[in-house]
This record gives sequence, C-alpha cells and structure tokens, in this order.
Amino acid sequence: MDHPAGSPRHLSRRSLMATGVLAAGAVGVAAPTLGNPFAGTPAQAAGATRRITIYAEQLPGGLFGYGLAPGQATVPGPVLEMYEGDTLEITLVNTTTQRLSIHPHGVDYSTDSDGSPLNASFNNPGETRTYVWRSREMFLASGRRFMPGSAGYWHYHDHAMGTDHGTAGVAKGLYGALIVRRRGDILPDKQFTVVFHDMMINNRMAPNTPMFEANLGQRVEWIAIGHGNLFHTFHLHAHRWADNRTGMLEGPADPSHVIDNKDLNPGSSFGFQVLAGEGVGPGAWMYHCHVQTHSDGGMAGIFLVRNADGSMPPGAEEAIHRFQGHTHQQHG
Amino acid sequence: MDHPAGSPRHLSRRSLMATGVLAAGAVGVAAPTLGNPFAGTPAQAAGATRRITIYAEQLPGGLFGYGLAPGQATVPGPVLEMYEGDTLEITLVNTTTQRLSIHPHGVDYSTDSDGSPLNASFNNPGETRTYVWRSREMFLASGRRFMPGSAGYWHYHDHAMGTDHGTAGVAKGLYGALIVRRRGDILPDKQFTVVFHDMMINNRMAPNTPMFEANLGQRVEWIAIGHGNLFHTFHLHAHRWADNRTGMLEGPADPSHVIDNKDLNPGSSFGFQVLAGEGVGPGAWMYHCHVQTHSDGGMAGIFLVRNADGSMPPGAEEAIHRFQGHTHQQHG
Amino acid sequence: MDHPAGSPRHLSRRSLMATGVLAAGAVGVAAPTLGNPFAGTPAQAAGATRRITIYAEQLPGGLFGYGLAPGQATVPGPVLEMYEGDTLEITLVNTTTQRLSIHPHGVDYSTDSDGSPLNASFNNPGETRTYVWRSREMFLASGRRFMPGSAGYWHYHDHAMGTDHGTAGVAKGLYGALIVRRRGDILPDKQFTVVFHDMMINNRMAPNTPMFEANLGQRVEWIAIGHGNLFHTFHLHAHRWADNRTGMLEGPADPSHVIDNKDLNPGSSFGFQVLAGEGVGPGAWMYHCHVQTHSDGGMAGIFLVRNADGSMPPGAEEAIHRFQGHTHQQHG
Ligand SMILES: [Cu+2]
Ligand SMILES: [Cu+2]
Ligand SMILES: [Cu+2]
Repeated sequence: MDHPAGSPRHLSRRSLMATGVLAAGAVGVAAPTLGNPFAGTPAQAAGATRRITIYAEQLPGGLFGYGLAPGQATVPGPVLEMYEGDTLEITLVNTTTQRLSIHPHGVDYSTDSDGSPLNASFNNPGETRTYVWRSREMFLASGRRFMPGSAGYWHYHDHAMGTDHGTAGVAKGLYGALIVRRRGDILPDKQFTVVFHDMMINNRMAPNTPMFEANLGQRVEWIAIGHGNLFHTFHLHAHRWADNRTGMLEGPADPSHVIDNKDLNPGSSFGFQVLAGEGVGPGAWMYHCHVQTHSDGGMAGIFLVRNADGSMPPGAEEAIHRFQGHTHQQHG
Repeated sequence: MDHPAGSPRHLSRRSLMATGVLAAGAVGVAAPTLGNPFAGTPAQAAGATRRITIYAEQLPGGLFGYGLAPGQATVPGPVLEMYEGDTLEITLVNTTTQRLSIHPHGVDYSTDSDGSPLNASFNNPGETRTYVWRSREMFLASGRRFMPGSAGYWHYHDHAMGTDHGTAGVAKGLYGALIVRRRGDILPDKQFTVVFHDMMINNRMAPNTPMFEANLGQRVEWIAIGHGNLFHTFHLHAHRWADNRTGMLEGPADPSHVIDNKDLNPGSSFGFQVLAGEGVGPGAWMYHCHVQTHSDGGMAGIFLVRNADGSMPPGAEEAIHRFQGHTHQQHG
Repeated sequence: MDHPAGSPRHLSRRSLMATGVLAAGAVGVAAPTLGNPFAGTPAQAAGATRRITIYAEQLPGGLFGYGLAPGQATVPGPVLEMYEGDTLEITLVNTTTQRLSIHPHGVDYSTDSDGSPLNASFNNPGETRTYVWRSREMFLASGRRFMPGSAGYWHYHDHAMGTDHGTAGVAKGLYGALIVRRRGDILPDKQFTVVFHDMMINNRMAPNTPMFEANLGQRVEWIAIGHGNLFHTFHLHAHRWADNRTGMLEGPADPSHVIDNKDLNPGSSFGFQVLAGEGVGPGAWMYHCHVQTHSDGGMAGIFLVRNADGSMPPGAEEAIHRFQGHTHQQHG
C-alpha cells in the first residue's frame, strides 16, 4: 500500500518554488531572433537554473534506483520538473559497481550530457558526472507555424548499464518521470508515476503493484512511461482524459480524442490530470494493462479514491482484500 | 456476405430518437458550478435516461454474444449510442451458465456498475443485474482549459468470464461499440463495427470476415475496437480520416494527422466517417490488419462500395470471388 | 555512410517545380459543390498532372527496389511528392521475374490502380502498367467540419509479391515515402526516409544502417514508415516534434503532444521537420528503435549533425568509430 512515486512530489514542488517560476501566468511565446542562419531561434532561456544531485544506488532484490539524497533511491526515481526555459544541472553520483548514466527525453542537451556510451557520456562505477538539461519555449518557424517547445510529460532513464542502450539499467529500475510545464499550466494536488516494463508495473506484479491514493475531488496527475520489450496499453477505470499535451481540452474546437486506454510502448510517455472519482464517486478503481495475458498475469493495480475527508468509502476494503487475496487466478 | 454490425443501427437510431435528443444542434458547454471542493463540476445531465435490456447468450461455435432481445445476440453486440448528458440504464440478463458482466469505456459509473469482480459487480449464471452508465459534457477546469466530456467512439465488453479481467468473455465475443456523441455531431447513414481480436475480425477469419456494404456517397461510420493479446494496425484501402475525435477536420487550423492506418491494440477504440467511394469510385475495397502475417493469415475483409443506385460496379463480383476462393494462399 | 534516401530529393524537388506549384502560398479550402448526393464534394483538382516512370528491379543480396530510372533502384525507393490537388501518373516497369505492384497510402485511386491482386491490379513479370494517384484538398462536410484532404506523410509499397498482401515484396525492399503537401507548407533542406521492418532499418542492421547527415541549423525532414510483423518505437536523440500533421505547432492553442518517441507499426507512417542540432549543437546523435532487444540487436543509426560550415564537430569521429566498432555487444 505504499506509493513511492508520491513522496518525491513534496521535494520537486519545493524545488520548483525555489526557482520562483511557479506563480507565472500567461503563455509566453518567444519572438524570433534575427541574424541567424535559420528562420527562427528560441529566445534565451528566461527561466532559472536549478542544481540537484542524484544518487544511483543498488537496492534490495537486484534493483537499482535514482534518489535525491543518499539512501533515498526509489523505483521509479523522483519526479523531476521544470518550466519551459529552465535549466536543470544534475550531478549524478554513481554509488554502484556498474557503468550507468541518466538520459532524458524531451529536453536539450549537448553530446556530453547524452548519457550514451556512443558519446562517452556515462558514469563509471563510483564516478560522479554532471549532466545539463535545458528547455525552451516554442518559437516561430515560418508563416504561422512554430517549432515546438519542451513542454510535455517526459521521462529519464539509464542508457549505459548492460548494453549501450541501458537495457540492464532500465530492467532493474533506473527510470523516472520528467515534466516540463508551460507557464500557466494547472498544477496537480498529487502525482503518480506508472512504468510498464515487461510484465511489471514499477518493477512489481499484482498484488504488490502500487496502490495510488487520493481523496474525492483531488486533482491527480498520472505520468505513464513504457519500457522494455513488450507492447502494452494503459487503462484506467471510471476516468478519462484528452489525448493531447495536458489531458484537458482547449475548448469546444479542440479536436483531440478523449480516451481511457492508450498504447504505452518502450520509450513513450504521456501524462494527464483527472479529478479523483469525479462523476463516479469514491471507491477502489482498477488501473491495468489491457492486454489480457498481461492484466491476468499481474499488470494491474488499485487507484483508491477515498471520501473527500480521507475516510474509506463503502466496499473499498473488500475490494482491496479481493485484489490482494485472489486476483489473477483463473475463475473456474 | 452478412454484416451483423449493421442491423442494430436501426434499433439504436430509433432509441436515440425516442429520447428526443437527435435534433439538438449547438455545442453546449457546461458552466462551472460554484461551492464545490474542486474548480469546476459538470452541469447536471441535461439529457434523457434511456432504459434497455441486454441479453447475454451462448451462441453456436462456442461463442457468446450480447443482444437487445432474447435470441438476438450477435458478435459483436449492438452499437449503443447516447449524447453527452444522457444516462443509459442497462438491465443485463445472463442467460448463460458462466459468470459475466458488461464493462463500458468512456462513461461514468459507480463501483457497483464497474462490471468487475474486484467490485463484486457481475452477473452470476442466470442472474439479472442493472448497470448505470452516465455521460457528461466538458466543463471548465481553470483558466481556459476544460475537463473532457464523454464524447467518443468507445466500447463495452465482459470483465468477468474466465478471469477477473473477462479474458474468456472477450475471447468468445462479448464485446460491442458504444458511441457518445456531442450535440451537433454529424450522423451517419450506416455503421460498421470492426473488432480485431487475436488473429480474427469479429471472431472470424477470411474469407468469412464481414463484408460491409454501402452505396457510393453514403456516409459510413466505422467503429474499430481492439482486444486480446496481439498488436494490430487497422488499414482501409482508398479512404482516409483525421486522427481526432470525429475523423473530420475542424478547419484549416486543425493540426490532426490524416491517416488510413492506425494502431488498434487491446482496450483501444476509435471511429470515423467516410463517404463511401468518394473520389475513388465504387468497387471491392479491402480493409485489413497491416501486420503482414495477420493479413496473410486471414485478418482481411471487403468494404463493398456499390454504385449509387445499389447495383454492382464492374469488377466487384470478380474481386469477391477471388477473395472467397483463393485469398490468403501463398502466391508461387 | 551512404544515405540512399537523400539523393532522390533532388529529383523530386525538380519534379515539383516542373508542375509550377512550389511557390503557391495561401491555404486554399475547396468550396462545397451543390447538386450532389452527399453534403459536399471536393473541388476539381486544381493541380497539375505529373507523369513518371518507376522501375522495379532486383538488387544484390536478394533485395528489390523501386527507382526513377533504369539501374537506379534503391531501398527505400525515391521520395515521391505532390501538392493537394495534384495527380501522379506512374508507369511501373517490372524488370523482375516476380509478380509485383505499387500500392499507395493516403491518395485517391480507382480499383485498377489499387495495386492489389484482389482487384487484379499488379504487374506480371516483365509487364508495364500505369497507376494513377490523385489527391485533393479538404472540403466542407456539414456545419463547420471538413472531410480531410490528402496532405500527409504517406508511403507506397508492393502489394502483390509472395502473397496477396505483398509480404515478400515489402520484406525485400519494395517501399518508399510519399508526401502530399498542403499549399504553404514549409519545405525542408534535406529529407531522410527511415523504414522499420522486422529487426532492420531500411533493410539493414547496425553498424550498416544509414548515417544521415546535415549541417547545423539545416531544416531536415524525417519520414518514418513501419512494415512487417513486429511493433517498434522510433526515437531520435536531442530533437523533438509535435505529434501532428506537420510536426510543428499551429500556435499556443495547438493541443498536440510534443514527442521524441513514437510507435511505428506496420502500415503506419509519419513525418516531421527538425532544425539539425538546434539548441543542442552538432554531434553524432543516435536514432533507434526504443524496444530494447531491437536497439541492442541492431535497430540503431547515427544522425550526424556537422558544424554549420560542414566540418566535423569535436567527438563525432570517435562516436562513429565506436558505433562501427563495438556497438551492440553486451557490456561486461
Ligand atoms: Cu501489458
Ligand atoms: Cu493484426
Ligand atoms: Cu523495434
């Protein structure tokens, strides 16, 4: 019943506030810079530079994790957040006996922060190395079109343990969520990271998969990440979201699909916010891979929506008991 | 040459008309309600409540189906439709000797209508049970963003036969399309439901896959649903659609991809409308999974576009004959 | 270090200019035509008709390719381009001893240009046959919605060699990119075609996968195509794009996901433009399938971003040497 992806939230929010960008309001679109070999260039990063240290550690059960302080590594690692324009300087301390790195999706980095053996960008055992991730706002390309900014629900992962693509590191838990927000984006009350990797969720199988908890009406942000060798589809019961950058609609003309099931394949990620139990009430709601042999085999967990005051809703204890006791057996 | 997914259309359109919402025009966006623990809430359902009875029945060949009257079960089940704001009250009669349920995607339901054994929401053999599905319009979240409404091309399926995820029920045919329309959406002339499940289309293999028929220029709505354990891609020859909620563009600034091939994986669904043969003429057009071993193995069928007056276009008989006779053999 | 998909660019651009449509500016939306059995019809094709000859040839190593002149066949074939409204008349010369065809995605064609044995539309060994591909602009459906036009990053492939779905032809290299542009779309400086098929990229495995080259700041267009029997995810290091028709945003209200990893499954295709090295600098950047066993097994290549003057950036030679020498071995 623990939810390891929840606790880093406090830290990351505090970190965001320290940069002073949390209260920012309007969407700022960078004006194009002239005198440049190509049509437009991003404005200088308006945001702050944040420096953090991440510790890669060996964990019980053959797992490895990233953590924001010694002895605090988790699977998945902490949710890292920034606003478009911010820079994140990560000092990665490799406390393990394995070669490893940290490779981000969605942000800008030079080859020496690529996190790949191809670019000799990794930490040898015991080594400390700094990786710099930059981000940017959209900027005018030509006519009315814009080259995209960095905002998105991204992720980071090892790219060096076992093979040149980090296959062993990813398999053992070296992954986490990275969020780049656009100024004015709505902030959530809670965050859950869900990583589908082979037949596991956050390297666990039912009934030991994370139980994510929220109170009725809380704004919950889900970050879903795919890894490994299998294809998956993420499904959440009784809640849905728009299949776009934020999970919300920009208005009646927003053409986005609204969905409650989405492909979650290796290297992909997406995120969305729901109001817990909104329109459906509290209860033990399932989230699971919709590939039948995967959900039957243990890729399922519970999203526990408590009453607004935090108390348990009727039937939820029984549902949790059923899940822990005899889920995932064949029904005769 | 039958098309089982076509016949329920009559019934569902009649049902929609009975609720008096078919003629509704403008897009209605619900205003936020104040005095609520979270930023916005959906307006009260403006729509009607419709009550239907569905019979789950055993069919020849080990199949099971849902039907709107005794002895009328089909694979896939009937297309169910509602407008955002409507409520559907389904009395499910289990005429079989198996535990089963009906679980929807995309709509709102309380835990006792979840259709899952986790929430003790299923029909024992011979049991009758009522499931309530509600829907809603988008509503303001904060700033300019909206929490999505229920409109979409969804589906329903068993979640209780064989395993706690309904693996046996889904494998045997307990699935169907559910459409939630937004007021003002364009209604089609015909509807086809295509379910990709393992190596089959609507639990059949070529040349026994459904042949869908329309006359040149008719507005045809396709609802594609994925189930099972394999990944698939749905491809339709000579027609294409926008990869958004309706399959049409909202105008020149709608950024949606236009596609004719789309991933159709377990638990996912999408829909779109095409004008039959528009720009390409009548004929026997293929629809198939684009995974080569799947199409070669029998995941292919014919979309027969007749002349505008319903007569057969030149070459179509020969194409159908080829399909029935020697498709899916190795060409030496 | 060759890049076969680059050279056809010259030809296709010249061909486009010959039709006189390259300079066209504003987005033209076709007005609906009255007196028609369905709500709207596309305007007459405003564009030109272009006639080309394509030679299907047998290549060394058991491969087959399409080429725009005798002895010029490549894997993938040439990038074919047109503007919405244009017609492409392709005379396909089958110089091989196998039955084969050319089947396009995204454009309009009659049954005799379907390229499928179902419609008796293929070239017997030694045979020459003409296929006609038409395209169109979006046109008003009803209310404010538009039936989509043909613009998109599409592809073409054999549909007749080996099986009725062209399984052998596709496996042996008979595929290529087809781009339909909307008037006013931004044109690139370079184009790269990437086809993921089984465990290969453009029918090659690392380190023999194509190395795509550009100078810092060049506008590079990627066209990614999926084929075969496996699922894949295309990932590009240090660059990203909007998951919509153009890969660019229409402005701050464009809700599209911004991504750097996308499902690339059989029959699907997408395209996007990036500014080479923009915000990250020059270097040897990886592109690869993000399925771990696939990238480890050889589905990876290098996007070499040179300095703006074409010279080699620091570290790039070493990275290329590493890639050619000892990538894709297990790291002990
Ligand atoms: Cu799965
Ligand atoms: Cu398939
Ligand atoms: Cu792959």
